[in-house]
Amino acid sequence: MAKRNIGIWLFGAAGSVATTTAVALGSLAAGRSPRMGLTSELEPFTRLDLPAWDAITVGGHEIREVTVSGEARRLAQPEGFLPAELVEACGEQLAAIDRRVRPGTITGAGATIARLAAPSIPKDEPQAEACRRIQADIERFADDERLKHVVAVNVASTEPSIGSERLLPADWPSIERRLEDPTCQLPASTLYAIAALRAGADFINFTPSLGSQPPAIDDLVRRQGLRHMGCDGKTGETLMKSVLAPMFARRNLEVMSWVGHNIFGNLDGRVLDDPTNKATKVHSKDHLLSQMLPNRPQTHVSIELIESLGEWKTAWDHIHFRGLLGVPMTLQFTWQGCDSILAAPLVLDLVRFTDLARRRGHVGQMPFLASFFKSPYGVDEQAFDRQFTMLERWASKGQQTMSSEE
Amino acid sequence: MAKRNIGIWLFGAAGSVATTTAVALGSLAAGRSPRMGLTSELEPFTRLDLPAWDAITVGGHEIREVTVSGEARRLAQPEGFLPAELVEACGEQLAAIDRRVRPGTITGAGATIARLAAPSIPKDEPQAEACRRIQADIERFADDERLKHVVAVNVASTEPSIGSERLLPADWPSIERRLEDPTCQLPASTLYAIAALRAGADFINFTPSLGSQPPAIDDLVRRQGLRHMGCDGKTGETLMKSVLAPMFARRNLEVMSWVGHNIFGNLDGRVLDDPTNKATKVHSKDHLLSQMLPNRPQTHVSIELIESLGEWKTAWDHIHFRGLLGVPMTLQFTWQGCDSILAAPLVLDLVRFTDLARRRGHVGQMPFLASFFKSPYGVDEQAFDRQFTMLERWASKGQQTMSSEE
Amino acid sequence: MAKRNIGIWLFGAAGSVATTTAVALGSLAAGRSPRMGLTSELEPFTRLDLPAWDAITVGGHEIREVTVSGEARRLAQPEGFLPAELVEACGEQLAAIDRRVRPGTITGAGATIARLAAPSIPKDEPQAEACRRIQADIERFADDERLKHVVAVNVASTEPSIGSERLLPADWPSIERRLEDPTCQLPASTLYAIAALRAGADFINFTPSLGSQPPAIDDLVRRQGLRHMGCDGKTGETLMKSVLAPMFARRNLEVMSWVGHNIFGNLDGRVLDDPTNKATKVHSKDHLLSQMLPNRPQTHVSIELIESLGEWKTAWDHIHFRGLLGVPMTLQFTWQGCDSILAAPLVLDLVRFTDLARRRGHVGQMPFLASFFKSPYGVDEQAFDRQFTMLERWASKGQQTMSSEE
Amino acid sequence: MAKRNIGIWLFGAAGSVATTTAVALGSLAAGRSPRMGLTSELEPFTRLDLPAWDAITVGGHEIREVTVSGEARRLAQPEGFLPAELVEACGEQLAAIDRRVRPGTITGAGATIARLAAPSIPKDEPQAEACRRIQADIERFADDERLKHVVAVNVASTEPSIGSERLLPADWPSIERRLEDPTCQLPASTLYAIAALRAGADFINFTPSLGSQPPAIDDLVRRQGLRHMGCDGKTGETLMKSVLAPMFARRNLEVMSWVGHNIFGNLDGRVLDDPTNKATKVHSKDHLLSQMLPNRPQTHVSIELIESLGEWKTAWDHIHFRGLLGVPMTLQFTWQGCDSILAAPLVLDLVRFTDLARRRGHVGQMPFLASFFKSPYGVDEQAFDRQFTMLERWASKGQQTMSSEE
Repeated sequence: MAKRNIGIWLFGAAGSVATTTAVALGSLAAGRSPRMGLTSELEPFTRLDLPAWDAITVGGHEIREVTVSGEARRLAQPEGFLPAELVEACGEQLAAIDRRVRPGTITGAGATIARLAAPSIPKDEPQAEACRRIQADIERFADDERLKHVVAVNVASTEPSIGSERLLPADWPSIERRLEDPTCQLPASTLYAIAALRAGADFINFTPSLGSQPPAIDDLVRRQGLRHMGCDGKTGETLMKSVLAPMFARRNLEVMSWVGHNIFGNLDGRVLDDPTNKATKVHSKDHLLSQMLPNRPQTHVSIELIESLGEWKTAWDHIHFRGLLGVPMTLQFTWQGCDSILAAPLVLDLVRFTDLARRRGHVGQMPFLASFFKSPYGVDEQAFDRQFTMLERWASKGQQTMSSEE
Repeated sequence: MAKRNIGIWLFGAAGSVATTTAVALGSLAAGRSPRMGLTSELEPFTRLDLPAWDAITVGGHEIREVTVSGEARRLAQPEGFLPAELVEACGEQLAAIDRRVRPGTITGAGATIARLAAPSIPKDEPQAEACRRIQADIERFADDERLKHVVAVNVASTEPSIGSERLLPADWPSIERRLEDPTCQLPASTLYAIAALRAGADFINFTPSLGSQPPAIDDLVRRQGLRHMGCDGKTGETLMKSVLAPMFARRNLEVMSWVGHNIFGNLDGRVLDDPTNKATKVHSKDHLLSQMLPNRPQTHVSIELIESLGEWKTAWDHIHFRGLLGVPMTLQFTWQGCDSILAAPLVLDLVRFTDLARRRGHVGQMPFLASFFKSPYGVDEQAFDRQFTMLERWASKGQQTMSSEE
Repeated sequence: MAKRNIGIWLFGAAGSVATTTAVALGSLAAGRSPRMGLTSELEPFTRLDLPAWDAITVGGHEIREVTVSGEARRLAQPEGFLPAELVEACGEQLAAIDRRVRPGTITGAGATIARLAAPSIPKDEPQAEACRRIQADIERFADDERLKHVVAVNVASTEPSIGSERLLPADWPSIERRLEDPTCQLPASTLYAIAALRAGADFINFTPSLGSQPPAIDDLVRRQGLRHMGCDGKTGETLMKSVLAPMFARRNLEVMSWVGHNIFGNLDGRVLDDPTNKATKVHSKDHLLSQMLPNRPQTHVSIELIESLGEWKTAWDHIHFRGLLGVPMTLQFTWQGCDSILAAPLVLDLVRFTDLARRRGHVGQMPFLASFFKSPYGVDEQAFDRQFTMLERWASKGQQTMSSEE
Repeated sequence: MAKRNIGIWLFGAAGSVATTTAVALGSLAAGRSPRMGLTSELEPFTRLDLPAWDAITVGGHEIREVTVSGEARRLAQPEGFLPAELVEACGEQLAAIDRRVRPGTITGAGATIARLAAPSIPKDEPQAEACRRIQADIERFADDERLKHVVAVNVASTEPSIGSERLLPADWPSIERRLEDPTCQLPASTLYAIAALRAGADFINFTPSLGSQPPAIDDLVRRQGLRHMGCDGKTGETLMKSVLAPMFARRNLEVMSWVGHNIFGNLDGRVLDDPTNKATKVHSKDHLLSQMLPNRPQTHVSIELIESLGEWKTAWDHIHFRGLLGVPMTLQFTWQGCDSILAAPLVLDLVRFTDLARRRGHVGQMPFLASFFKSPYGVDEQAFDRQFTMLERWASKGQQTMSSEE
């Protein structure tokens, strides 16, 4: 693995996923932590020419009055999940990241997220101005750190759905004009996407927020010769759905109902406690079942904020299905996972694969990364195994045809 | 689907799986029951030229003093699982099957199974004689019913492992000579396989018993130009393992331990309550994890006879795994299934696919049927999705190349 | 047990609980079914002079266009839970009950329940008129069947909370005057209570609806020299809460959060799918935890209608607690019960105990019946074991002091 | 709470329960940790004159080559459960305890435990000698620390059952004579009990080992005017059994089967991996169900060593029961607890209550402590709530009658 000076720019830089990503990267670069959880550290991907862990630099935007270092220490408390000695060992790297973190924007982020903002975050910042400010921050990051390339990743809190996504024009110039129009508010995640793309960065939407999903942003991606993908990292309960639903379908077992209850207690949970933000997330967790199960079972997803659980998410799923002669049977599972520990390696994998895609000359959406997302852009296949095969094929294809690319 | 007069010969003909198979077949032939649970009723397999439901005739061997009709009625009681009206509607077909059922053999079946035998079952029957008797029964079945072809399926109780499988010679003539030697006892399931193959029938080993697994029996299969496959139908907890273990592997989540506790109360459970019989089953349920999980986690499988559960099997699995930075997490699932309802459609699918394989000219093991088995003969791949892809490929390949075969 | 001709009058007579009660009573009277589920069939209660099973006659009000016989047959289908042969054997008794069922009222029942009503149910019936009509029905029942006494039990669907319960006057004469005032609407359950009490019947509120809870109705009970108790039968998840919460409290284990998710698919579920009706039920299922757990943990109760589950209720509870040194631990349980099978014996027990209370001369609320209810009238104790001790004490006290009462 | 200089002498002094007890005591004495998990810190017990936390001194015997300080640090690692800062804060107290720990005996402890012993532990030590040595250690502890009284608690690993308990003579003098007879081996736990009692200490058997259970040891207790109680602390799954079984019994719900699977990975688990040691524990966890459930359901208890779980015990229980009309239903629970965190406060509670019993003049077994044990000496009542009521009565009775005792 050659050193290449790749940058990761994280929107939501001191959030739990971002902080875990930063600590993991510090540990991996120092060879301190095992490579569990990282798909890119598996055969056959280890044979690819992916960026080395110590060639990746982190920066980002944050709206709250917290630091990555402080959050890392908080998450290393007994009720957290980060190993205290690792956090301590990464102290310098985290402090360096904190120096690179710039104030985010709450323009278009919705009321619940806006309430989290530090006093220093501009209020009523016009969206065009926010966009320009963010773009400049990313450009300065690339310059200051002498980066070959930056991949921007949205790991900020889930925004409310704006509801009028379908009314947006499909070409970039139309949206570009609207940016200056204060009556046409775009979501913060879309402003982040525009700013990153204008700054020449690829964009990964790890959340269910709108981000780069509108066709007009895809248009911008292609005009810039860049890459993007989303949305909503597939980490726990939904990963299970994309693994189990195909099993039922292939055995012709008719799923009658699939209920999923999710409880957890972190900031993510507090934001999702707002019904408008929650609606975005529930849709993302729910829709894929009907794509995988031909009879379209009754489904129900709940997400509840239970403070005592902190970063630990527990999901209980109850699947009621029928077999031969219509006999009903039941599968229940309880998933007790730590969302950030599951999500951070996907962020790192995505950045590495995106950088390789760039060097391979890929432009636009990256369907071979579908296995990482709940709602993969441009991909109808929801079965995890088939999505994973897409990644394997992309990896092996590239190997054969692309030896002299960089 | 053309009518073809195919026969299914079931070893363990009045067992729970066989009885359910018989009732299902009667219902399907009459168009009375939905086709849930049947893989062969799914796209793209419905496009294949598979035997029609009303072109299949059932017979078999049974050692206990029960009838298929009686067992069907028993399984239609409130504590059972068969819909009473379906059983009633199939009354005539079940009676016809009962007329075709012949006494099985307990030679080589082990003490626990022998204790279940009706007084009429010959004791101390020499194995060569048992083999000849069974062969004659199957030949008469094919003649009487004017069958084009017979597929024999072993759904009898799990036998104890004989432990010396590896010492058996690998060629059929050597085994054939041993048959006459009373000091070289073969398991009943292997005698059944030999008898079926000599009678010109294909052989499916739906249990973990030895059956046709020895290379010498495979040799016989090929000499006869027949087909066989096994072993141990993958219906519930193990199906889940073959679906979930690849998920952990592909996400590089290190499974530290995988515990599976199985409780149920039917005859199967009573036979498995004998530690020697249980050992065969536990190995079959357990070994595949280490094939799918590179770090070879600690595994534990228990099977306990809990009378009150009857035909309902409940499995509780506890999977302890580590992600990024070594953080431990847990997945638990509870599977509440009815084994016979899950197994019977696989028996029917296997018979239909085996018949098609015959018409396609396939001889020997049938690796494309791996997805149906816990320990597929000749196949190392244990991931359900990849096994299923093998079936899909076989199905589509045949379609293209084999239009004029029969 | 002497024959005494006791009547049970069921509001919601063809509902699932009422139908199960009727079938059970028929079976018990005929000596056909075991006495499982019945507290009154346990030592020491079997020593009490309780009404014999064949001395109890059933009638009731129903608003839907269904019969008890029809519902019993429906619940004896494979997806139901009643043993078909028992339902058949009770055919005559059920038909007799159907002849005694009168049209209920939807006045004050809320929009969701009103939508269930048969065309024959009077619309816009003034509440005083409804009350008089219902009273007359019960009086005629007592006369026709020559009953010594009637116990009326509300097993109708849960009503929306009226919200203004606290504003109701505390004395009966004030409420009696309001009955004639069309602007002061009382809930249907309270009208049922008033009608029953005026007809000389005791009243049991087996639901969380308002019923006889207002002090003014208690006043009426005492003026009439009658008895009443409620509310909301404690059958499954809440029973578990009242058993487990004291365990945590007595071991000084601090419950931090208690989440309970309930899914089921019957009519009860469909009514509770209306948020106003659901609010009444959720409160009833939730409030008792804070009474039993001194630190008042975060609690969450959800109730979701999942059609495929029918009468089978599955509850998943997740209890997060802390022990010594603040170390967090978890208890999860899954309760898979049939609500009507759990509720019907409580209805029968309550009727028998209420009849004994009458003969012992008890008047007013019956705190010794607290163990049967989620929100027992006039009782703060929520621990099931202490409530049960109250029942045992009442039983034994009565035995000593009351030999000559009837 | 007056200072009283009470000693706790722990057999198994550096085991997980003992180490947790030591850390907890250090924290409680310093006012550093909340009092969760401690029954004696609840109303009404806080009104009793119990020893203050800083008036209790710890010593003990240990056979392994580990220290309390070292074990505490190990249990404060990320995969452990002790808060690192508490362990650090207690460093001095733990070091002081280590200076008081003496070598235990493996005489009569069984082969699996003997294999754990440090080289310094005497091999083939005659039992009479072991007994005298241990007695002298305890006497010196009491002298050195100027203790008013010592309570010895057995928290050592579970021994194999000797099988011949019933053949032991019932009077102490007979046993005393046998001590010198090398052919009549007593279990190590019984030697510990004898030594403690001879040294004037009370004895608590927190394990299922034989300890002071034989009538002859009870005879010694009474001759010495001392107290003892046991056996086997009721901490998790069995606590649940003693809470849930009465619920089923009181509702006349017939439990048909109760299966309990326990998995954990600590030293306790490794010792119980020996089938002879495991048999002792399984009996202790199982027998109480048949005492609480009149119909004597089928029960099954398994205990499996799963290394990755460490100190965290997960129990899955599956309870299959029948209600009205024989309809089957299911309750499952998963208990994820930390055994030592659950056990240590019970040890502390038992010591405090035992000391009060002494001051109240109680001699012999202490039935009012039944709620702490799986198999309480001399008590048939297994329902947790009734056992707890015994403790409350004892507490309140003492208060009234015993103001001037010390």
